[in-house]
Amino acid sequence: MAKRERWQKNFSEWFSDILRDADIMETRYPVKGLFVWLPHGLKLRNSVLGIMRRLLEESGHQEVLFPQLIPENLFKKEAEHIRGFEGQVYWVTHGGHDKLDVKLALRPTSETSIYPMFSLWIRSHADLPIKLYQVVNIFRYETKMTKPMIRLREVTTFKEAHTAHADADEAEAQVMEAVKIYKRFFDELGVPYVVSKRPPWDTFAGARYSIAFDTLAPDGRTLQIGTVHNLGQNFAKVYGLKYEAAGGKHHYVYQTCYGISERVIAAVIMVHGDDNGLCLPPNVAPIQVVVVPIPYKAKEAPVEQIATAVKNELATAGFRAHLDDRNLRPGNKFYYWERRGVPLRLEIGPEDVAKEQVTAVLRDTGEKRAIPRKALGTKVKQMLDEIAENLRERAWKLFRESLKDAPDLGATKGIVKKRGGIARLPWCGQESCGKEIEEQTGGDMLGEELDGAQAPAGTCPICSKRAKTSVLVAKAY
Amino acid sequence: MAKRERWQKNFSEWFSDILRDADIMETRYPVKGLFVWLPHGLKLRNSVLGIMRRLLEESGHQEVLFPQLIPENLFKKEAEHIRGFEGQVYWVTHGGHDKLDVKLALRPTSETSIYPMFSLWIRSHADLPIKLYQVVNIFRYETKMTKPMIRLREVTTFKEAHTAHADADEAEAQVMEAVKIYKRFFDELGVPYVVSKRPPWDTFAGARYSIAFDTLAPDGRTLQIGTVHNLGQNFAKVYGLKYEAAGGKHHYVYQTCYGISERVIAAVIMVHGDDNGLCLPPNVAPIQVVVVPIPYKAKEAPVEQIATAVKNELATAGFRAHLDDRNLRPGNKFYYWERRGVPLRLEIGPEDVAKEQVTAVLRDTGEKRAIPRKALGTKVKQMLDEIAENLRERAWKLFRESLKDAPDLGATKGIVKKRGGIARLPWCGQESCGKEIEEQTGGDMLGEELDGAQAPAGTCPICSKRAKTSVLVAKAY
Repeated sequence: MAKRERWQKNFSEWFSDILRDADIMETRYPVKGLFVWLPHGLKLRNSVLGIMRRLLEESGHQEVLFPQLIPENLFKKEAEHIRGFEGQVYWVTHGGHDKLDVKLALRPTSETSIYPMFSLWIRSHADLPIKLYQVVNIFRYETKMTKPMIRLREVTTFKEAHTAHADADEAEAQVMEAVKIYKRFFDELGVPYVVSKRPPWDTFAGARYSIAFDTLAPDGRTLQIGTVHNLGQNFAKVYGLKYEAAGGKHHYVYQTCYGISERVIAAVIMVHGDDNGLCLPPNVAPIQVVVVPIPYKAKEAPVEQIATAVKNELATAGFRAHLDDRNLRPGNKFYYWERRGVPLRLEIGPEDVAKEQVTAVLRDTGEKRAIPRKALGTKVKQMLDEIAENLRERAWKLFRESLKDAPDLGATKGIVKKRGGIARLPWCGQESCGKEIEEQTGGDMLGEELDGAQAPAGTCPICSKRAKTSVLVAKAY
Repeated sequence: MAKRERWQKNFSEWFSDILRDADIMETRYPVKGLFVWLPHGLKLRNSVLGIMRRLLEESGHQEVLFPQLIPENLFKKEAEHIRGFEGQVYWVTHGGHDKLDVKLALRPTSETSIYPMFSLWIRSHADLPIKLYQVVNIFRYETKMTKPMIRLREVTTFKEAHTAHADADEAEAQVMEAVKIYKRFFDELGVPYVVSKRPPWDTFAGARYSIAFDTLAPDGRTLQIGTVHNLGQNFAKVYGLKYEAAGGKHHYVYQTCYGISERVIAAVIMVHGDDNGLCLPPNVAPIQVVVVPIPYKAKEAPVEQIATAVKNELATAGFRAHLDDRNLRPGNKFYYWERRGVPLRLEIGPEDVAKEQVTAVLRDTGEKRAIPRKALGTKVKQMLDEIAENLRERAWKLFRESLKDAPDLGATKGIVKKRGGIARLPWCGQESCGKEIEEQTGGDMLGEELDGAQAPAGTCPICSKRAKTSVLVAKAY
């Protein structure tokens, strides 16, 4: 079984070490909150994005690319939105030696650059719905402590979708479609999550309500990995997004937006790792199978020959296979590829050659299996599927164990402050009590579970009134 | 034959119209020099980038992603470089309500963000060579007139490669590899080019020398579409990029960098278009084949059924095929897809159904062909290859005709100012004469052809001394 002691107890160190050792990220760039994606990390990122792009395209979203700079007047048009962001916006004030007439914001998100263009595109009912997305870099002047992939000044990988609809029902249905897409996305990555409706004081600036996906880091803190917002007609009214309906009447559109960031990649790294390093789901692993020849004296030639043949056979069959023929000791190679999270290692020594087999080692469990050469492709496929399934189950098991009913504040505090995890507790629904729960437990209210079928039990731990709902509370990143 | 009158005589209008009509780019974003990529344009962009990524990966380049913001002190370290760029740099001076301690430059190119990291990575000979690339947005505070894809304040699609080598020969060989990669890239796009060594006064800031690829717009002006720079040890010395050689001695590395931008996509649009709109090479066309059913009264069902079957058959065979089953007149659909440059249209009417054929129409020539249903896949492949080849040849033919020997300044002026195109003329090699040639002809000196085998003939048109070389002069975008 995989050891997960350091992973859990010294998570922050584990995470830093693995970003460096697995060639994921260079953290020494000399500006706070900015980091460099290294080749292995960027390949992982691009695979993860590939899944998201496919899911969005399949559901009728079209990719676009908007400018990064937003003129101050446009940006400040929506008062609530700007209040939510103005403390965090970077401003470009000079070009060359000139002071700019109009300051330019580095987009912290793109509502205020995209929606003014919607106003040029939306004329009639036939122009709706609009379902667009883009993958861009965004900027937040983050004053808290930054952390690679988690809390950034430049979010390099912001996938944001923006939609416009003729009526409120369609927008509501779009919110549900987005939730469904994100569930499929996280399921494909084996990343466990809870979906909840954020409390009003944690709603996206300018939205009617916000739904968020949270997963758990090994240290028991939650990580928000996706959000879906119902914007109602708020932005539509500010930017004049009107369409002419059948009868000739003009109506404002209803809008939604939803986003994910490189936190998703952090989540993949976190939830599947162990003390030996990364453990990547096969569908996003830059290398799925590494072939390591183990030549013994006087047996070099056949071992190397078979190793090359095995690698080529797998590559031809469509696996991302790599032959490690470096002049290093096998043990060093094992360590190297384990650290990088390659799901499957195939060792080929003289005995394997003689028996017409390869020795497979599964990254998640360390289990060894002798695989007949003639069944190679089928068996590799099976083992990769098995690893994906095991990673998913292992992550979900830990996640489910970490989400607990907490009948009172004491129990909540115990979870939030000591053991880590998510506490589910009854709530009367009043903002003052909600904030008091956060205050007294040191936790953050994630909100009401979206799929929470359970009837709210008990009473609000603050006002002792009968609970209207149950909410999730945790220490969030 | 394709009509190319407006394309040539009113190129600027043609280009604007086509960006809008073919769903390539929205040009009404309210900041000068910033534009919005629309879905069809972004798909084209991503296909083109896909070719570049493949060529770079195949030749051992690894993709990375560096931060966009460069602190002033780091940026200004290389004096020559900053002199070349300081008039064009956007500066971030404020974050939220705070004035920043250190101003941040929006990268105009990434030497000054990447090379400081190289200094952390390069220790010994074993760390070399480094061959990295990234695809990013860059910013230039452009004071001249801007133009979508051509002259921008935000270049959204900057592919820049950066390499470091142990010695000068290896760096020189890398320059030649880059030239070869770019040639293959433009060849795959059917975009004609001339490769020349820029004169010293047009060399990249901080480079020893610069090699550039230029193509021709329909109006006879050249468009620089790729550059390759030999940086020598200039940046290495500034940023301390040293390695320890076998003997224990420390040496500065030698560097190169090379880049392309969305001008490449502009070039694809320009060189292949005609009066009817885009004409896209099949390898980058978002839709390669559009199937248009032409139902006649009482024959709707079989026509639609066959059209769907044809579309599905092509999609299964790996073609990017689209069925246009909108409720529009066929003529409108033809116009719509021609404008968008879809290489091949398959029409299916009752007669085609009866004869078990489809009617193919080739976008480049307008030629119609009856294709037997049972040979569909093979014939479509053949026709797409034929279109690619014809586009390439047509573009190269025009390009070659537009590059002319000009024995004197009068002839050069005639080319540069009147007919458009590139003039090749003798030059003594002196900077003062070179600048005088530019001055008197109103042209820009592209430089000496890289593959120019021809001996310099005649005398320098300024000083009348015997020519050392021949150079290309044109009006450049």
